[in-house]
Amino acid sequence: MTFFNNIKEIKYEGKDSKNPFSYRYYSPNEVILGKSMREHLRFALAYWHTMTADGSDPFGVGTYKRNWFGRTTKETTKNRADAFFEILSKMNVDFFCFHDVDIADQGNSLQEFFDNLDEMTDIIKDKMKEYDKKLLWNTANMFTHPRYVNGAATSNNADVFAYAAAQVKKGIDISKKLNGDNYVFWGGREGYESLINTNYGLELDNMARFFHMAIDYSDKIGHKVPFLIEPKPKEPMTHQYDFDAATALSFINKYDLQDRFKLNIEGNHASLAGHTFEHELRVARENNALGSIDANHAECQLGWDTDEFPYDIFHITLAMYEILENDGLNPGGINFDAKLRRTSTSPDDIFLGHISGIDTFARSLRAAAKIKEDNFLENILDKRYESYDSGIGKSIVEGKESLESLTKYALEHDQINVESNHLEYIKARINDYLV
Amino acid sequence: MTFFNNIKEIKYEGKDSKNPFSYRYYSPNEVILGKSMREHLRFALAYWHTMTADGSDPFGVGTYKRNWFGRTTKETTKNRADAFFEILSKMNVDFFCFHDVDIADQGNSLQEFFDNLDEMTDIIKDKMKEYDKKLLWNTANMFTHPRYVNGAATSNNADVFAYAAAQVKKGIDISKKLNGDNYVFWGGREGYESLINTNYGLELDNMARFFHMAIDYSDKIGHKVPFLIEPKPKEPMTHQYDFDAATALSFINKYDLQDRFKLNIEGNHASLAGHTFEHELRVARENNALGSIDANHAECQLGWDTDEFPYDIFHITLAMYEILENDGLNPGGINFDAKLRRTSTSPDDIFLGHISGIDTFARSLRAAAKIKEDNFLENILDKRYESYDSGIGKSIVEGKESLESLTKYALEHDQINVESNHLEYIKARINDYLV
Amino acid sequence: MTFFNNIKEIKYEGKDSKNPFSYRYYSPNEVILGKSMREHLRFALAYWHTMTADGSDPFGVGTYKRNWFGRTTKETTKNRADAFFEILSKMNVDFFCFHDVDIADQGNSLQEFFDNLDEMTDIIKDKMKEYDKKLLWNTANMFTHPRYVNGAATSNNADVFAYAAAQVKKGIDISKKLNGDNYVFWGGREGYESLINTNYGLELDNMARFFHMAIDYSDKIGHKVPFLIEPKPKEPMTHQYDFDAATALSFINKYDLQDRFKLNIEGNHASLAGHTFEHELRVARENNALGSIDANHAECQLGWDTDEFPYDIFHITLAMYEILENDGLNPGGINFDAKLRRTSTSPDDIFLGHISGIDTFARSLRAAAKIKEDNFLENILDKRYESYDSGIGKSIVEGKESLESLTKYALEHDQINVESNHLEYIKARINDYLV
Amino acid sequence: MTFFNNIKEIKYEGKDSKNPFSYRYYSPNEVILGKSMREHLRFALAYWHTMTADGSDPFGVGTYKRNWFGRTTKETTKNRADAFFEILSKMNVDFFCFHDVDIADQGNSLQEFFDNLDEMTDIIKDKMKEYDKKLLWNTANMFTHPRYVNGAATSNNADVFAYAAAQVKKGIDISKKLNGDNYVFWGGREGYESLINTNYGLELDNMARFFHMAIDYSDKIGHKVPFLIEPKPKEPMTHQYDFDAATALSFINKYDLQDRFKLNIEGNHASLAGHTFEHELRVARENNALGSIDANHAECQLGWDTDEFPYDIFHITLAMYEILENDGLNPGGINFDAKLRRTSTSPDDIFLGHISGIDTFARSLRAAAKIKEDNFLENILDKRYESYDSGIGKSIVEGKESLESLTKYALEHDQINVESNHLEYIKARINDYLV
Repeated sequence: MTFFNNIKEIKYEGKDSKNPFSYRYYSPNEVILGKSMREHLRFALAYWHTMTADGSDPFGVGTYKRNWFGRTTKETTKNRADAFFEILSKMNVDFFCFHDVDIADQGNSLQEFFDNLDEMTDIIKDKMKEYDKKLLWNTANMFTHPRYVNGAATSNNADVFAYAAAQVKKGIDISKKLNGDNYVFWGGREGYESLINTNYGLELDNMARFFHMAIDYSDKIGHKVPFLIEPKPKEPMTHQYDFDAATALSFINKYDLQDRFKLNIEGNHASLAGHTFEHELRVARENNALGSIDANHAECQLGWDTDEFPYDIFHITLAMYEILENDGLNPGGINFDAKLRRTSTSPDDIFLGHISGIDTFARSLRAAAKIKEDNFLENILDKRYESYDSGIGKSIVEGKESLESLTKYALEHDQINVESNHLEYIKARINDYLV
Repeated sequence: MTFFNNIKEIKYEGKDSKNPFSYRYYSPNEVILGKSMREHLRFALAYWHTMTADGSDPFGVGTYKRNWFGRTTKETTKNRADAFFEILSKMNVDFFCFHDVDIADQGNSLQEFFDNLDEMTDIIKDKMKEYDKKLLWNTANMFTHPRYVNGAATSNNADVFAYAAAQVKKGIDISKKLNGDNYVFWGGREGYESLINTNYGLELDNMARFFHMAIDYSDKIGHKVPFLIEPKPKEPMTHQYDFDAATALSFINKYDLQDRFKLNIEGNHASLAGHTFEHELRVARENNALGSIDANHAECQLGWDTDEFPYDIFHITLAMYEILENDGLNPGGINFDAKLRRTSTSPDDIFLGHISGIDTFARSLRAAAKIKEDNFLENILDKRYESYDSGIGKSIVEGKESLESLTKYALEHDQINVESNHLEYIKARINDYLV
Repeated sequence: MTFFNNIKEIKYEGKDSKNPFSYRYYSPNEVILGKSMREHLRFALAYWHTMTADGSDPFGVGTYKRNWFGRTTKETTKNRADAFFEILSKMNVDFFCFHDVDIADQGNSLQEFFDNLDEMTDIIKDKMKEYDKKLLWNTANMFTHPRYVNGAATSNNADVFAYAAAQVKKGIDISKKLNGDNYVFWGGREGYESLINTNYGLELDNMARFFHMAIDYSDKIGHKVPFLIEPKPKEPMTHQYDFDAATALSFINKYDLQDRFKLNIEGNHASLAGHTFEHELRVARENNALGSIDANHAECQLGWDTDEFPYDIFHITLAMYEILENDGLNPGGINFDAKLRRTSTSPDDIFLGHISGIDTFARSLRAAAKIKEDNFLENILDKRYESYDSGIGKSIVEGKESLESLTKYALEHDQINVESNHLEYIKARINDYLV
Repeated sequence: MTFFNNIKEIKYEGKDSKNPFSYRYYSPNEVILGKSMREHLRFALAYWHTMTADGSDPFGVGTYKRNWFGRTTKETTKNRADAFFEILSKMNVDFFCFHDVDIADQGNSLQEFFDNLDEMTDIIKDKMKEYDKKLLWNTANMFTHPRYVNGAATSNNADVFAYAAAQVKKGIDISKKLNGDNYVFWGGREGYESLINTNYGLELDNMARFFHMAIDYSDKIGHKVPFLIEPKPKEPMTHQYDFDAATALSFINKYDLQDRFKLNIEGNHASLAGHTFEHELRVARENNALGSIDANHAECQLGWDTDEFPYDIFHITLAMYEILENDGLNPGGINFDAKLRRTSTSPDDIFLGHISGIDTFARSLRAAAKIKEDNFLENILDKRYESYDSGIGKSIVEGKESLESLTKYALEHDQINVESNHLEYIKARINDYLV
């Protein structure tokens, strides 16, 4: 079945196009810095925002008009898969991501859920082949059901830990079956509602135990894809354990998970943690842990996860610069964990929203690539830190100095000149690149 | 004396210029929508950030290198005036703004301060004529001196109220002498440190009494320029009485000040209040109270006044759209209440910083004018609210309906269709205008 | 039917009681400052949090175990009314509040909804008589249904305005039928998702038209209860028009609604607006507009409405002090717009949660009353502002001074001493009252 | 010389005392849980807030009236030492803390600064003996001087790194000379103003090199006291590298510093990072890294460091509970990094402010100790996590399970009951302890 008969394939028409259903900046096969835009960006659509979201919020019920609801849950589930691949195809997007509960009904028992997953992943596997689409990552939803009210691997109830383990085993099996490039852990309710009644030490130890089991199992079945933790500071829990990139890395290293775990960085989550998106990318990159990204935007006046489609070309250009410096994201990619506004009720908005996000990244890739070609930021850094390339600076970096030797040096070099950083000019020049 | 011998006049060189000391977007005499950019934008430089700021912050002393310090305070004060007009001239900026304490030393008595002000305003008056520059507004600094620790007009000490009154009388006299276009009140410490020990009612009544005295005096001397309140929500006080535009308007109307008082809206202050800049401009505009603006930017992760030079072209385009809808700001203007980063220690940065801000506004004016020419947003509004142009909507607007008549109507029209707002597409289109 | 057979009446047992199902501070008939605690506090339970909430949040479905679900919606609805009055009775709480949709099913048409409301309000009226309970206020839910996605009175669609008018007419009718003490307007989605596509002026004008219709209708039917606007700054909308008390008052006065409209102040909403609860109460009180309060608490790290039961005795003491200074809230009261944590799944928690909130207010009333009896804060204010009781201060307050006369005074009184406010000591003393 | 002749020794007078210059809760030698309050709390006064602060803020100059200013800098410096020990003595506080620049003038060269430090530490050493006071910690101010505009160990200028090394060497020498219990690093400007021009990797590597030099030197001179990093998320820098406890621990472990580095946790800094104080203490404690604390309070509406004296007995009780669970802080302590409000201009306020903070902690210690004696929270945790004490939970903790074995278990145990956490009741009970 097809569901978007009025929508044609979205094509690159250049930046002067007035056609809403066109890419103005994204030209998939155009080569930039030696790679096609498609390879640079590795865009993915999220099954949940695209197919199962309904526009509800804490103060209102669903508003979206969708034509894929069937007479039974099973029919709806299958229609969704049809519609999803139609969208991927018409948008010329190569990858997708999903939670287990997005694609299959949970039924009344764990066994029934597994059976439904088997059936639906058979269908999806066929579609992937038919449409030549790839799975960027899948994950397990371990936060919606009441059993997860106190977390999954960090639940106070061992039966919940076991249930979560079963979901993740199945998730890794599915990842292997569909040849997924990564597997993601967003710690839904891994955190605390109140510190007062929380055994923080046990909960974090258990989370680590859980991750090691996942490593062991994936090793055993020979599916050693990167595991990605997605940091978020709060919501739904008062405190989420994977607060930000630094906190997640602290956990990863403390529990010796660094060989298999990297990070999936989200823009909105960065904002909620009091960081810029580019900051979180930098922290991940400098720790060799930038796995993949969840692309979205937060209005900074708002204190909850709004998952808006990204449109801020200044900051996304800085984000793309980090990605270029990382030599790309592969095997990770750019997943649109972005939801339509509740007022974007039309099926057309699925296309318009994603076009807006894709063009924001494509335009930003173009700007970041130009900055890189010009060595604009590289030259600034080289000049700014040149004191560490020779003399006392070089000696410090090489580990040859001590407090005593430096005291001797400082007593003779205590009149220090401060050069301007010219930050206002640098920002103005970055704006000049945003054309 | 001249102070910037290495700097030439800043000229428009177009957006491909690589000359840091050029305007890439601001072409003062270019006509857009029937007015020159100069008339549209009415840029002003702030004496305080430009001349008296030293780069200190709560954790560090001054860092800026300046060559106008003389052997005496008086000499420094005069050098500053020379340097300031040199900058205005080289930057081709028509307006300026100042606090009383920026231009003259306070001495040891109020009389001495007045004498110093008389001397310096004579000098400045001559320079204004010589360089053909105009005073956008001046104001009184009633927050730095210890006497103002509890506010000025809202101090618990009547002697402080009197002192403030004297400063403002002098300020209005100066405004008349220099033919200022507006007079500004930023309520420095008009607010409370703690509500517990605050007589909120008396303080606000006193603030109103103070403003009425200012109106009476300006009327008496025949200098009826707009008085502008500048909202800010917090800092230095825990709560500032002019929290945001809505709060300031509430005060203005409650105390019957609306005939003479408008608002001076600042970007950073909007952010601190949890608003966008364009929101505050809209509130002011819709209440016929948009007087002037203080142009600057806040990184939204930071909770204090950073007064960064504006660079966010998306939001400044929306701000410029408000200004165009307001039919400009005249007799107000765009004052750069923006300070260099503490690391921008070079005198050159004064120019580079202001160029960055001016080009941000110029580029945004160009984008906003194009949006207006295309009726892009106007068409969206017309369509979206068309139900109020006829039928029951028109009748509501005309005041012909009641709860009873509408109940009758609703019982017959209770199946309501919700059209999409397509917000993602709208934002993408605005991005398309930012070239 | 009864639903809480294991719960006995909650009684005052004094602060050393270890019985969780007792009041440690709330002794309803104990007289403080000449009034019973019951009269001071006028507690109300909220139908929505108490009866219809299910523990769902944006990331999870309902978790609460309730025994009042029947075989049909109608049966459930009736069971809820039974259970609700059982709770009111066992908790010895005199008042309650509800939205129209809390008590009756909306059915498939407006007429059906009205019929259901008629049936249920008959039942509730009987119960009120039987249990001697009173309606503090009711309101209309004009935000959950998709039709309200763009607001109600501020919708872009006139049919939605009409539908909302019908709901409010019915709400006022119900208020009269049940002899309600107030009628509340919380502006659910009265605000904007994006300023870009918003006709701000028309929307606010329409909101005022709507309120005037409500005044006219209540006048006509002879039910002139206070109408209360409940400020909130954001969520669900990006900007809510009734941002805070000052903004709502600005609106009320601009549109000449002050004779009938007061404010319903909520603690969590105050926090979201960047204010303390006591600040919002003060603003309302000083403008003679403190109508009623919604009691709840926000952890200030969280940027969304959490509606936690209040437990912060320091700040609630300051809130109670405002209420005492207001000579109480009557005909308003203290409504627990507070929801159980999602993990408080037991029916017992309905009692434990409300006991915690009630005792917080009761303990705070005791502290505030003691502060008042001691004239502790009154004396501080008297001393602090004494300069306005005589001399130049008195003359300022009496309107006898001008900028000129004060300049003359200031020139002779320009050496001003700054007395300490001793704020640290004042806060310590307030802590001393919290026993 | 003495400076507070009107102030007598502050003594414990019990909670009904109305004497402002008394402790109502702090009874130094009273034994609680087997230790004197003095030993539990190990209070310290901060030289900077107590002696060198002047009440200035970004919008105003100093306001405090102090009588220790001499005719020369040297005389003032010596007077300050006299006054400081007089305060310590009269307040019966055992410890103190200082920055190098607090106690000695920096002069015009590094050598001059060192000479001044030598002279003043001789004087302080004598006073410590005379008054029986101890140094909790000292630190180097590496943020106020312009040379540190881009950081110290993370400066882009190697000469600045060397200068900082010299300051720290001297600091460690002083620590040894005065027998300090700890040495603190608050990373003043170790962070970035803008990520754009920052070599994040080099800067963090350099910071680690710096700390290793400090370890090596202290080892060499045989003064192996704990080194404490003090996390702060922002201000003055846009991003501070020691963002919060988790981030600092991540750094410490990555660079193998864990044997000598612990954390100094500050309340206000926790708030700025979006955490509660008790959260940061818990993170530190669970990682065996809780070294010492900086006691102060932030009003959560404010986004900058206000360093208010602590008064929130609920949250400080939770903080004291963490400290008790940590078996105290020794060799760390509780340093009042708290400053008087700018309006607390009187010398008396130094005493009143510290009394308020000390009594807040003393009262909270009493409450936390009672909670511990009752096993109130311990019992809650034991019950809540009991599923990990036996059966499948025990097996998980013991590392005997795998995803496969747990899947098998879960398929048979997939109907999971959710017990209530009763959080509202728990918070109410904690309030009951605050008497």
